[in-house]
Amino acid sequence: MAGKPKTAISPTREENYPEWYQQVVKAADLAETSPVRGCMVIKPWGWAIWEGMQRQLDARFKATGHVNAYFPLFIPMSFLEKEAQHVEGFAKECAVVTHHRLEPAPGGGLQPAGKLEEPLIVRPTSETIIGAMYAKWVQSYRDLPILINQWANVVRWELRPRVFLRTAEFLWQEGHTAHATSEEAIEETLKMLDVYAEFAENIMAMPVIKGEKTPDERFPGAVNTYTIEAMMQDRKALQAGTSHFLGQNFSRAQEIKFQSKDETEEYAWTTSWGVSTRLVGGLIMTHSDDDGLVIPPRLAPKHVVIIPIYRNDEEQSQVLAYCESLAAELGALRYHDEPIRVEVDNRDLRGGEKVWQHIKRGVPLRLEIGPRDIADDSVFLGRRDQGPKDKSAVKRSEFISRVAAILDEMQQSLKQRALDLRAASTHEIDTLDEFRDFFADDASGGFALTHWGGLDPQVDDVLKPLKVTPRCIPLDGPAEPGTCPFTGRPSPRRIVFAKSY
Amino acid sequence: MAGKPKTAISPTREENYPEWYQQVVKAADLAETSPVRGCMVIKPWGWAIWEGMQRQLDARFKATGHVNAYFPLFIPMSFLEKEAQHVEGFAKECAVVTHHRLEPAPGGGLQPAGKLEEPLIVRPTSETIIGAMYAKWVQSYRDLPILINQWANVVRWELRPRVFLRTAEFLWQEGHTAHATSEEAIEETLKMLDVYAEFAENIMAMPVIKGEKTPDERFPGAVNTYTIEAMMQDRKALQAGTSHFLGQNFSRAQEIKFQSKDETEEYAWTTSWGVSTRLVGGLIMTHSDDDGLVIPPRLAPKHVVIIPIYRNDEEQSQVLAYCESLAAELGALRYHDEPIRVEVDNRDLRGGEKVWQHIKRGVPLRLEIGPRDIADDSVFLGRRDQGPKDKSAVKRSEFISRVAAILDEMQQSLKQRALDLRAASTHEIDTLDEFRDFFADDASGGFALTHWGGLDPQVDDVLKPLKVTPRCIPLDGPAEPGTCPFTGRPSPRRIVFAKSY
Repeated sequence: MAGKPKTAISPTREENYPEWYQQVVKAADLAETSPVRGCMVIKPWGWAIWEGMQRQLDARFKATGHVNAYFPLFIPMSFLEKEAQHVEGFAKECAVVTHHRLEPAPGGGLQPAGKLEEPLIVRPTSETIIGAMYAKWVQSYRDLPILINQWANVVRWELRPRVFLRTAEFLWQEGHTAHATSEEAIEETLKMLDVYAEFAENIMAMPVIKGEKTPDERFPGAVNTYTIEAMMQDRKALQAGTSHFLGQNFSRAQEIKFQSKDETEEYAWTTSWGVSTRLVGGLIMTHSDDDGLVIPPRLAPKHVVIIPIYRNDEEQSQVLAYCESLAAELGALRYHDEPIRVEVDNRDLRGGEKVWQHIKRGVPLRLEIGPRDIADDSVFLGRRDQGPKDKSAVKRSEFISRVAAILDEMQQSLKQRALDLRAASTHEIDTLDEFRDFFADDASGGFALTHWGGLDPQVDDVLKPLKVTPRCIPLDGPAEPGTCPFTGRPSPRRIVFAKSY
Repeated sequence: MAGKPKTAISPTREENYPEWYQQVVKAADLAETSPVRGCMVIKPWGWAIWEGMQRQLDARFKATGHVNAYFPLFIPMSFLEKEAQHVEGFAKECAVVTHHRLEPAPGGGLQPAGKLEEPLIVRPTSETIIGAMYAKWVQSYRDLPILINQWANVVRWELRPRVFLRTAEFLWQEGHTAHATSEEAIEETLKMLDVYAEFAENIMAMPVIKGEKTPDERFPGAVNTYTIEAMMQDRKALQAGTSHFLGQNFSRAQEIKFQSKDETEEYAWTTSWGVSTRLVGGLIMTHSDDDGLVIPPRLAPKHVVIIPIYRNDEEQSQVLAYCESLAAELGALRYHDEPIRVEVDNRDLRGGEKVWQHIKRGVPLRLEIGPRDIADDSVFLGRRDQGPKDKSAVKRSEFISRVAAILDEMQQSLKQRALDLRAASTHEIDTLDEFRDFFADDASGGFALTHWGGLDPQVDDVLKPLKVTPRCIPLDGPAEPGTCPFTGRPSPRRIVFAKSY
């Protein structure tokens, strides 16, 4: 192993990507498994990233005319049954509440008591309970559209949980809208897909492909599901957000009816759309490296950490005072309409240990400040998008005037790096042999742009053993007729295939 | 009934206070009951008020050194059992998850399947699950203090639910901290009580008494519970927030141990503190009147609503343009570090109908703007703290320069009104006869400041039939020895008795 550079995270991405992911989560102190099967604990640093996502998504939802509200955690079992495909999709992964109290058990300890007349399901998603309320609220076309979002926890019983990516309980937002016309509902569905894509690309620095899901990958009960698909560094796809056009399926099941302008009774057209704490997993896997987490500046809970370096009490008071005044000056500056977030790390730890902690936690900029830096009126700067040893002295005034620009450079360079990886790992594939080769092993793979002639068992026969799925029919892709290599049928355009999370 | 002024809400507070409350909630479109027993739907206007509370509380928690995190919704039944008083307090009102999927039932429909080995409780509060994590995180005194807050939903099965005040599911924040010493934990407990009191008084304009709960009113498992108690307009008390010193009770049950500076092994000292959506109920009952909701400006989702008044298309375009420019000018102003929130209500409804809607929804300031107002360069102003017909013309420039000051005047006058009611309805009561008279019927009542010599069945014998409870031992009250009228025992000070929500 001589000559191999040491990394803070072991194994490296190349050595074992899934295990690297777990180690990055651990080293950055983002989250932990809990004593409750499949449920995670989101620790303060991980929560702060999610909080940043919430804040910036929420502003976008409000800017597009939505308001927030809150609906019950529980759904009566009979509500789920009303939409046949919907219950089919969620019945196998429901947490079911059957009792409403505990009583002493005959053998000691406690047992459930007070059996409910009808079991309640902990919401896996809220179309049915929200639909029941909309049915009460909507009478006339004047009551439409309803444009509501909810921030909530949901539960889907997962047999193979994976922190942030697939957990029994997760946090999300779910938008639920109702409209008088099909056109308006479709416009809403695509508008929110655009909001998600813009957020992913500009705030998360995570490029995504906007597309339509193939029929077998739709949300249970949807007429059409749209998705944003991102490529992780192991070249697998992550479905990062979905927006569903529900047609009149749920409004028929829930009786959301209204009197139209022509005084006829019609069913409303509904949509739903959501992103979840899974985005934190996507953020980690898009940008992090073998030294740990890398956070794009637009989502960093701290932009700058200042590490005071001193050897004795006299130096300490001088250095600390300098660091605090620098922090105050930086904190008064703004970066994209938010204050620059600065921390002075004055914990009783060795400087080197602190530096490595902040590298592993992904803080964009580190300033080490000792007496010599003060004498020189400069800061010793380390950037998280450069190697841990690529540090350089920068005049304090220059740093102050450039800090927002540096953060933006980092934001752009992270996005560019992700775009480059995606470009290098996306290939047009036209034959079955090429397709099988492309996905043959973990070292290869990526996005295959391949013609597709529609659902068919012959397609599944090829995809299943490779663990590949159709990710989406890109909205922005060219209409380029060709032949489906799986079935030989004509195909209107290429679609994206990949292994996925 | 001739000569009786008409009110927007019927019945009035005097006629039927509980029903008036329900009607205010309905008229202001704040919340509704849902098809799930005891669970409410918080509608957009109600949610916006809660969102404002969250935002301003969260800033206070962060300013006092706390960070947010997130812990599981579910608690294994065995965790609850570990603290005897705790489980005693919550066992009777738990939602119990016993299965993790649904399967077709023999008679049609669905039934629960996949029985869990151990039932899970939907968290009624999170001391036990959070304590289990802290036990892992804390090894040394260097790991302390832990200062974490969580925003979450909790469930306590309620037999007599009442929107915002008492619901099966409610939303809250729960702070959970762990400390190396008892002194530090007590200091934290009281610090957060102060944060709650300051928020209640300055932001909600709701005066509160800070006090200690009597032993029988403590949180299950706490060594000491502190509370803020507010007086509603029917002179009943509302417990608006609590802060608990848990001693080492939970750290012993959960094994939260650490190595001290002296290298001895010790149990941590913990606290917990919370406020909930119940605060929205308190806000409604403190300020609203017989015309509907009154919102203190610091929590108003909209500070100003502009209602354009026009008779024809020509007037419409002129008036709308003027209203939009006025809204933009107001929106650029700030009120307590937040932008002034303005809405132009251009819905296709009669002006009078709109005005009454905004009165019922509690918007602080209403501007009606028609061609004559424009010609006069003035706005026609209605204030929610004055009668619906007390409107007056104000020069536009004067309104612009005074709007923040007007909002602050309203904030102060609402608080003063609440202080005045409390002062008029608080009495020192020294004999049993006076006590019984004071609480004899709904028309009387209030806060009784009465001597109390400690827990005793003789006290309960008097209180129970009157439906009165000890609310708190005021922290700021004078130490004034006297005699307990219930038992004849010596009493170190007066405490607060009242009927309560």
